[in-house]
Amino acid sequence: MDQRVRDHAETLVDWSARIEAGDDVVVRVGEGAHDLGVAVAEKLGERGANLLACYDSDELTSAYLSAHDGDFDADPAYELAMYERADSVLALGGTRNTAAAADVPDDTQRAYATARQDIREARLDTDWVSTVHPTRALAQQAGMSFAAYREFVYDAVLRDWESLAAEMAQLKEILDDGSEVRIRKDGDATDLTLFVDGRTAVNSTASVADDSHNLPSGEVFTAPYDTAGQVVFDVPMTIRGKRVEGVRLVFKDGVVVDWEADAGGEVIESVLETDGGAKQLGELGVGMNRGITRPTDQILFDEKMAGTVHLALGRAYDACLPEGESSNDSAVHVDLITDMREEGTTLEVDGEVIQRDGVFRWEDGFEG
Amino acid sequence: MDQRVRDHAETLVDWSARIEAGDDVVVRVGEGAHDLGVAVAEKLGERGANLLACYDSDELTSAYLSAHDGDFDADPAYELAMYERADSVLALGGTRNTAAAADVPDDTQRAYATARQDIREARLDTDWVSTVHPTRALAQQAGMSFAAYREFVYDAVLRDWESLAAEMAQLKEILDDGSEVRIRKDGDATDLTLFVDGRTAVNSTASVADDSHNLPSGEVFTAPYDTAGQVVFDVPMTIRGKRVEGVRLVFKDGVVVDWEADAGGEVIESVLETDGGAKQLGELGVGMNRGITRPTDQILFDEKMAGTVHLALGRAYDACLPEGESSNDSAVHVDLITDMREEGTTLEVDGEVIQRDGVFRWEDGFEG
Repeated sequence: MDQRVRDHAETLVDWSARIEAGDDVVVRVGEGAHDLGVAVAEKLGERGANLLACYDSDELTSAYLSAHDGDFDADPAYELAMYERADSVLALGGTRNTAAAADVPDDTQRAYATARQDIREARLDTDWVSTVHPTRALAQQAGMSFAAYREFVYDAVLRDWESLAAEMAQLKEILDDGSEVRIRKDGDATDLTLFVDGRTAVNSTASVADDSHNLPSGEVFTAPYDTAGQVVFDVPMTIRGKRVEGVRLVFKDGVVVDWEADAGGEVIESVLETDGGAKQLGELGVGMNRGITRPTDQILFDEKMAGTVHLALGRAYDACLPEGESSNDSAVHVDLITDMREEGTTLEVDGEVIQRDGVFRWEDGFEG
Repeated sequence: MDQRVRDHAETLVDWSARIEAGDDVVVRVGEGAHDLGVAVAEKLGERGANLLACYDSDELTSAYLSAHDGDFDADPAYELAMYERADSVLALGGTRNTAAAADVPDDTQRAYATARQDIREARLDTDWVSTVHPTRALAQQAGMSFAAYREFVYDAVLRDWESLAAEMAQLKEILDDGSEVRIRKDGDATDLTLFVDGRTAVNSTASVADDSHNLPSGEVFTAPYDTAGQVVFDVPMTIRGKRVEGVRLVFKDGVVVDWEADAGGEVIESVLETDGGAKQLGELGVGMNRGITRPTDQILFDEKMAGTVHLALGRAYDACLPEGESSNDSAVHVDLITDMREEGTTLEVDGEVIQRDGVFRWEDGFEG
């Protein structure tokens, strides 16, 4: 077995999930994630944790859903009981076909998700972590060879997380202390101000100890309460199975008042029309994982790319809000990404330049 | 997908497990049984049952066990709760390497099994069914090409079970009414009498409706309370990882008093020395599945081969005993098989020939 698979498993079990002896761990093995599953099982054995392996196969689930009449039982007790009693859930993604669910009607998918809300909540109440094992299908989605994609995944996952966490803490402090975040790029094309006074940034360190549940992670995010100006998202991505490119949003008083897109406009329209909250931003995130140097059309990686900023239409995370304050409420949370590495691009907080051309002040020593 | 995989799934779900709408079903997918898993998921969707897929991977389990110090938690609550609430457990065997567990110390395997007795019992308290999806590893174990092995498996599984159940009921009636079963073969080499007066035979129809939990099945078995004479087992098999051939046992007053083996004698010795019950027979079984025409070194199939009889050293099944009577007690249950298809071989009950040269009276119309 590739030593990096073992290193991935060790990072997941020790740094991310903080597994200890006696922990009841559910490992959800994607149908292309067998090798990572074996490495994780070995690591759980070493730590003296308990192992229950579930099979997280897109093909099985799709076959089941396609054949079902859509009238699903609510939260079957045997699965709910399992997650309610689990300490940790490790989801090892790694599909063999990103289009495996293409035949499942949207209605059926929605009905299934709706029927399983308590199971979902029980799972999210554990120390859960999601990660991805490189597969040929994911390489294809990224437009990369399998060999290059594997390098990419391990560069993203096998970081010095402690050191990155310390670096990200600097940005968290700046955002926590700041009131106005301004993003400028391409002259007037992007000039957006986000108001974050009183909001708390989350240092997303890829560890449940920091309430961070993705491996890789490497972003700092907060929740703006108001937004003004315009922004262009130039990192292409697939949303709801459709290619989306060159999205431009115009905000007034925190709400999208105008928009256009070079491709996938119907998806953006559908997102914006979901509900009132979908027209407002729920998240401002800053990618800081330097192992991620290019988009691969998977949001788990893309939004952490160093030198990018992402904004999400829709729901905000409670962790960013003052105690007792409710978040921007919406059924959706759709991330869109802007590349900040072009010349003349700046990220400012209260008038001080924090990042220029994708490089932070503390990296380059420039004057803010 | 091969239509036979779908037929296998339908036989499993409908005939064997009798799945109904709303049933909570755990499907344990072997690491080589993905395709059968997909077909079973589809069938469960059609029936409106609930699906929870576990990953039953020899490599995962072996990696976990090899790394563990052997001090296992007793019956982890999250897994126990799942099986306690499940209606059915469908185990889809299909390994990719029958030697996957070769590195796991025996002590560790025993300790793991001992720590999980309540989980095992909860699983056996459901309407469980074990079956096998053909893999190259199992073909190799059988000494067959993959193509031929697949034919073999589907011949064994895709029977007219209702018709076979009716045929087997005839033998059950004969054994239930009988007192002495005599097996004769090769002159004096095999001449064994088994006393079954008061014992109840089980018609193993591959359906939970008849308390039969293997697919394929196709055997009638009972539990002798006494045995006298000698028997040679000429179907070779692998027991505890060792090849065993040409085992000869001599019984007096129900107990093995002499034995020899052409190969694997150390395994037979170790079995016989386990405890007092290991020197006595717990089972007399008659294989009646005509789809199984040759041994493949997997007991799930071999013991159901039409024209064979198997006897098990060790534990008897409670279903064969009069109400309240305790069985031959032993930690082991090891099946050994004799081929009855040679000329001059007979199976008699109370002096009447029931089967001659592997053919039943009702097949051939001979006088008993």
